[in-house]
Amino acid sequence: MLSKIINQGIAIASCLLLSTSIMAQQHPSLVMTKKGVEKIRENLGKVPLFDNSLSNVKEEVDQAIADGIVVPIPKDMAGGYSHEVHKKNYLLMQKAGLLYQILNDDSYALYVKNMLLQYAKMYPKLPLHPQERSYARGKLFWQALNDANWLVYTSQAYDCVYDYLTKKERATIEKNLFKPYADFLSIGSPQFFNRVHNHSTWGNVAVGMIGLVMDDAVLLDRALNGLKEDNLPAGMKDNDGGLIKKEGQKTGFLANVDEPFSPDGYYTEGPYYQRYAMYPFLVFAAALQNSKPEIKIFEYKNAVLLKSIYALLNLTNSEGEFFPLNDGQKGMSYYSRELVSAVAIGYTYGGRDPELLSIAKKQNRVELDENGLEVALAVQQNLAEPLVKKSLNLSDGPDGKQGGVAILRSRLNDDESTVVLKYAAQGLSHGHYDKLSFSYYNNADEVIQDYGLARFVNIEQKNGGGYLKENGSWAKQSIAHNTVIQNETSHFNGDFDIGSLNHSDKYLFDVSDPNFQVVSAIENNAYPGTSLHRTMALIQDESYERPVLLDIMQIKSEQQNQYDFPYYYFGQIMSANFKYEKSKALMPLGDKNGYQHLWKEASGVATQDNSKVSWLNKGTFYSLTAALSAGDEIIFARLGANDPNFNLRNDPGIIFRKKAAQNATFVNALETHGSYNTVSEFTSNAYSSIIKLEKVRDDANYIAVKIHNKDNSILLFIMDVKDSSSSKTHQITIDGENYQWTGCVFHKKIK
Amino acid sequence: MLSKIINQGIAIASCLLLSTSIMAQQHPSLVMTKKGVEKIRENLGKVPLFDNSLSNVKEEVDQAIADGIVVPIPKDMAGGYSHEVHKKNYLLMQKAGLLYQILNDDSYALYVKNMLLQYAKMYPKLPLHPQERSYARGKLFWQALNDANWLVYTSQAYDCVYDYLTKKERATIEKNLFKPYADFLSIGSPQFFNRVHNHSTWGNVAVGMIGLVMDDAVLLDRALNGLKEDNLPAGMKDNDGGLIKKEGQKTGFLANVDEPFSPDGYYTEGPYYQRYAMYPFLVFAAALQNSKPEIKIFEYKNAVLLKSIYALLNLTNSEGEFFPLNDGQKGMSYYSRELVSAVAIGYTYGGRDPELLSIAKKQNRVELDENGLEVALAVQQNLAEPLVKKSLNLSDGPDGKQGGVAILRSRLNDDESTVVLKYAAQGLSHGHYDKLSFSYYNNADEVIQDYGLARFVNIEQKNGGGYLKENGSWAKQSIAHNTVIQNETSHFNGDFDIGSLNHSDKYLFDVSDPNFQVVSAIENNAYPGTSLHRTMALIQDESYERPVLLDIMQIKSEQQNQYDFPYYYFGQIMSANFKYEKSKALMPLGDKNGYQHLWKEASGVATQDNSKVSWLNKGTFYSLTAALSAGDEIIFARLGANDPNFNLRNDPGIIFRKKAAQNATFVNALETHGSYNTVSEFTSNAYSSIIKLEKVRDDANYIAVKIHNKDNSILLFIMDVKDSSSSKTHQITIDGENYQWTGCVFHKKIK
Repeated sequence: MLSKIINQGIAIASCLLLSTSIMAQQHPSLVMTKKGVEKIRENLGKVPLFDNSLSNVKEEVDQAIADGIVVPIPKDMAGGYSHEVHKKNYLLMQKAGLLYQILNDDSYALYVKNMLLQYAKMYPKLPLHPQERSYARGKLFWQALNDANWLVYTSQAYDCVYDYLTKKERATIEKNLFKPYADFLSIGSPQFFNRVHNHSTWGNVAVGMIGLVMDDAVLLDRALNGLKEDNLPAGMKDNDGGLIKKEGQKTGFLANVDEPFSPDGYYTEGPYYQRYAMYPFLVFAAALQNSKPEIKIFEYKNAVLLKSIYALLNLTNSEGEFFPLNDGQKGMSYYSRELVSAVAIGYTYGGRDPELLSIAKKQNRVELDENGLEVALAVQQNLAEPLVKKSLNLSDGPDGKQGGVAILRSRLNDDESTVVLKYAAQGLSHGHYDKLSFSYYNNADEVIQDYGLARFVNIEQKNGGGYLKENGSWAKQSIAHNTVIQNETSHFNGDFDIGSLNHSDKYLFDVSDPNFQVVSAIENNAYPGTSLHRTMALIQDESYERPVLLDIMQIKSEQQNQYDFPYYYFGQIMSANFKYEKSKALMPLGDKNGYQHLWKEASGVATQDNSKVSWLNKGTFYSLTAALSAGDEIIFARLGANDPNFNLRNDPGIIFRKKAAQNATFVNALETHGSYNTVSEFTSNAYSSIIKLEKVRDDANYIAVKIHNKDNSILLFIMDVKDSSSSKTHQITIDGENYQWTGCVFHKKIK
Repeated sequence: MLSKIINQGIAIASCLLLSTSIMAQQHPSLVMTKKGVEKIRENLGKVPLFDNSLSNVKEEVDQAIADGIVVPIPKDMAGGYSHEVHKKNYLLMQKAGLLYQILNDDSYALYVKNMLLQYAKMYPKLPLHPQERSYARGKLFWQALNDANWLVYTSQAYDCVYDYLTKKERATIEKNLFKPYADFLSIGSPQFFNRVHNHSTWGNVAVGMIGLVMDDAVLLDRALNGLKEDNLPAGMKDNDGGLIKKEGQKTGFLANVDEPFSPDGYYTEGPYYQRYAMYPFLVFAAALQNSKPEIKIFEYKNAVLLKSIYALLNLTNSEGEFFPLNDGQKGMSYYSRELVSAVAIGYTYGGRDPELLSIAKKQNRVELDENGLEVALAVQQNLAEPLVKKSLNLSDGPDGKQGGVAILRSRLNDDESTVVLKYAAQGLSHGHYDKLSFSYYNNADEVIQDYGLARFVNIEQKNGGGYLKENGSWAKQSIAHNTVIQNETSHFNGDFDIGSLNHSDKYLFDVSDPNFQVVSAIENNAYPGTSLHRTMALIQDESYERPVLLDIMQIKSEQQNQYDFPYYYFGQIMSANFKYEKSKALMPLGDKNGYQHLWKEASGVATQDNSKVSWLNKGTFYSLTAALSAGDEIIFARLGANDPNFNLRNDPGIIFRKKAAQNATFVNALETHGSYNTVSEFTSNAYSSIIKLEKVRDDANYIAVKIHNKDNSILLFIMDVKDSSSSKTHQITIDGENYQWTGCVFHKKIK
């Protein structure tokens, strides 16, 4: 559906914008329009999904009106009283505004009016928020970011009650509240407003939205194109170490569409922040489309805003929870309010894709605007079709040339196995140092986890809901991820500036055979003088009950190093086929770069044979088979050391360690198998089906692996490691047998 | 409903049994009867719950028939191949027998016949099972217990196909299989057969069931009354340290009803084993009722077998999972096949209680016999009524005078808080040393856990599915439980013989006020010279969002001791209001009695103020407030030390420690409050509502506690600790105020 729009792709000269004459606006005209209101009113009581959403929102707002308006003096961090009240207030105002339009009931407009007047009374006297932690403090909230949130929502409320207010009331509110508010967020906070970052997106949109309502061409231009002058030094950083300004940085909303989004719609900060930024991106786009259709914002950059919705929906596990790449809080999902709005806007402005309706059905609520109505109507008409998530490669970088994120999905009956391989760019200030890291899901269960962020968002007890020290000392470090760590240092030595200059590169993404999907990527810069090449194959074969993940990491270096290769699993260890010693006393595994946070619980030494560990998690067995070299170390680690405030989860990991190796290759296979039921107490298929994992070739040209199975079959995998061309013809001999094929990879059941 | 039956309670002279002439039996006549078969056939296709169950079973058995019969030479431990096949076989034969009767399709009878003939061929040559771990080895399985399981199910299959077989076939099967099998389980395994224990119940019933089918009065008498001669020495123990024989022990099925069940239907081994034993208890009772109605087995001991069904259904959390008292595997629930059968038998033979139907509805399957049909018919007729679990005190001991288990339940909207206080007897060989221990649930979530057993039932990798060493070194020890541990030694010094002689005593169980439910119990023998008195009040009050659990442990001793008082919580610590030091290296907390398994993660020292710890688990906040004395130690511990095979879960606990105290009182309050949602990222009520917990009186006569709340209210609780009489009148002065009341406890919002 999307292609129709993309093919019309047009470039916009932002300088054109001011020349389009600004006409007297109707109200409402942002996401909700006058025409939309009419259609909604006509359909009231006829469309269950809309009516139920309306009824829930009405109940909530009626209760809030009954409880009375509170506009407290700003004081607390996130999670604290004043923070939560102001947050509730903007959400309530936006909803009350919509209710006023839909139900034509003055009490909702009155509620918004009275609250706005209270804010208008308080705002002129407000100093900066007393909490000093942010690089860009707000006035209502500890950071300008939350102030921008407030305005993005409140401008919609204002739009809805605009005509209800007298001219004098509007003058008061605009003069004392909205104009200084918008100036503070922009001119008053250039380090916040003039970045390429989700923060700025919120700031730009806040200013743009209120600019549209107030018909203020200056604010709108500022929103779209940024501040002309910001006097910020290039290289300036925020309080989380994120870059504020780079040389020649474009700014404003359009720059924030241009730069962080790849042509595939992947947002470089990662899905958690993409979700967060989605709301301002899309409501402003809808508002622009409604007020300034000549901008054709939904066609901008080949319709990247629409594509980004699909990218985001695909960056989820089987229950719709986002992969917690970079700083991502686990549990956030496409059930969030931002995605409810995004799905409806995507549906209405993106060609009415019936697959989006299946997500709307799951969300089971819609925004109370015309987009929500369109979705609800279509759902009622049974137009929904399933959105089946497929294997997918999402490029990163403005031009799609800065690596990416690959998702392999393998479906068997009702079960889905999902591999997420990250070979992207740094991801701005929320990026982690985890080139070629992966996570793995069995349906919605994390088999091999990405830790996500170290933060309890909006829980005041934990550092005011803000990032914890351990986010830097643990969560961002390479050892916190399932990738290679050389000499116990993080990728790019954990240096943000260097990390930001680099990205991994795709080598191969081949999902043409659903039973043998391969992704392969290379990282040459994480450790100068060392190249890392990771290849993962998700294999379905009758020798296995469930998919097997073959994981090959080839390391080439100019000197000898120690290589650690962790797998952060969940569950209880069932067995290991090698001797290991549990530690009598637990010591941290290292003293820096995240290692200081890991307790060394046990360790063993690999023999010539494969090393195999099995565990049980939530009724499913998993077996990890590693073709290690004799003498390699196997470490059982558990998170939690040097964690003075219990900020970390105490999750376990298995680390394969090669000491004093120069070139080295890890070859591992991870099986999902069997089940255990605590009610029937039946156990099935509790053992690994792999007898032996054998590296049969590993040189400058090829890597080849044989998997010997319990059913006596042998699966052979060969890959050209120098040339991933799909047309190249190969002929090699392995164990006396001759193999010929065309393309980068070869795989065959040879017995 | 039950009372009708109980009031007819009659005693049975077991010597009468042999004199009742045994008449030629009809077949089937055990749980399924000829009459039942007719009624089932009449109703086929008309009763969805029955038809669906039939269809599922048919599909399973048809598949098994297609797969063919395998009767392997016995070899493996539980979870291993031969074990699992023989287990599947008996379950399949029982089902195939029923299908033959219901569908009148010879292929099912043929399947049973062929399998029985294979067993009859193998059995005479079988030596003892090669695995030597059990005190009573079986032949098909590593322990005679599993052999008995086999016969309990297979005797039903034989009953169903009895008339299908030729006389000669029956003779072969009985001579080569069933008779020697029954003799082996009884005469051949007296140490297994002649106990009071769930093992013997299975053994007795196996022999009794096949005795009924074969119309063998000798076997039936042996089943009911045990072996007359066993030549076992009194004091003999099994491989788990459980007592096999005590002086003057009565034996057989009737003794196994008499002794382990209390008059309330509580089974002294605990709910996990009660569930396990329920199947033989009830199918044999049903078979006896059908074959020998003159025994009136369901009226025996005031209808205790029927009462036991209710006891068991009440010993569950809100999702029907059994409280894992003593050796109990978590996750086992009333959805197990044993309870499916128990509910139907209880319904049919226990007065057709409509509340049982609500459980049957949840189970959503029935046994394919007449009891299952009765349940399914009644469900179809919408007769089901909810079984609302109430607060309940279940006595322990044959006469109900050996302490018990108290359950307090507090319901608020859709939420249920549940306290389980264990003050029972030892519980035979599966008992733990945990007098006055408790567990606490928020709906089905464990807030304060009972660890349960250290075993992975039927998972071969883990010690063949059997008990792990850590079951003795950790799970049974007192420190593994939420109770007092004196001087780092377990109750009764962990001595089974001494533990078996003792039990705690009820002091008070008063749930007359649903908003202030109190249970109180005393333990005088766990530590000679020390008395422990625990009082728990589950309080609902408008000062709190959710119930508060007030927990008072009064200790009086003849000498100074160290007292540890652990709370095994789940979740992430959010905050603590006292200083604590995280350990730089983790050392075990002690060197024996379970302490060797705990890592000491952190510790702090209590000040004069209350010590408060808050944590977050699954979206709910919990706060534990302790009125400690200045200088008391607070230890954060985590399980997992000295666990060479990763057999333990790495669960956390908070331990309050009083050093060198003689008389001491712990006063704690545990709040459930607030919520956190990872999708909306909204936090509510994240802080404790208790400002101060104050012990205002603690002497030989009274304990009194004031709870000062954030809303400025004060809740006063007073209890007479010497006399729990409900008629006694009290008058005391606290903080200058005079309080008068009648009964043991007083509570009032005094501000």
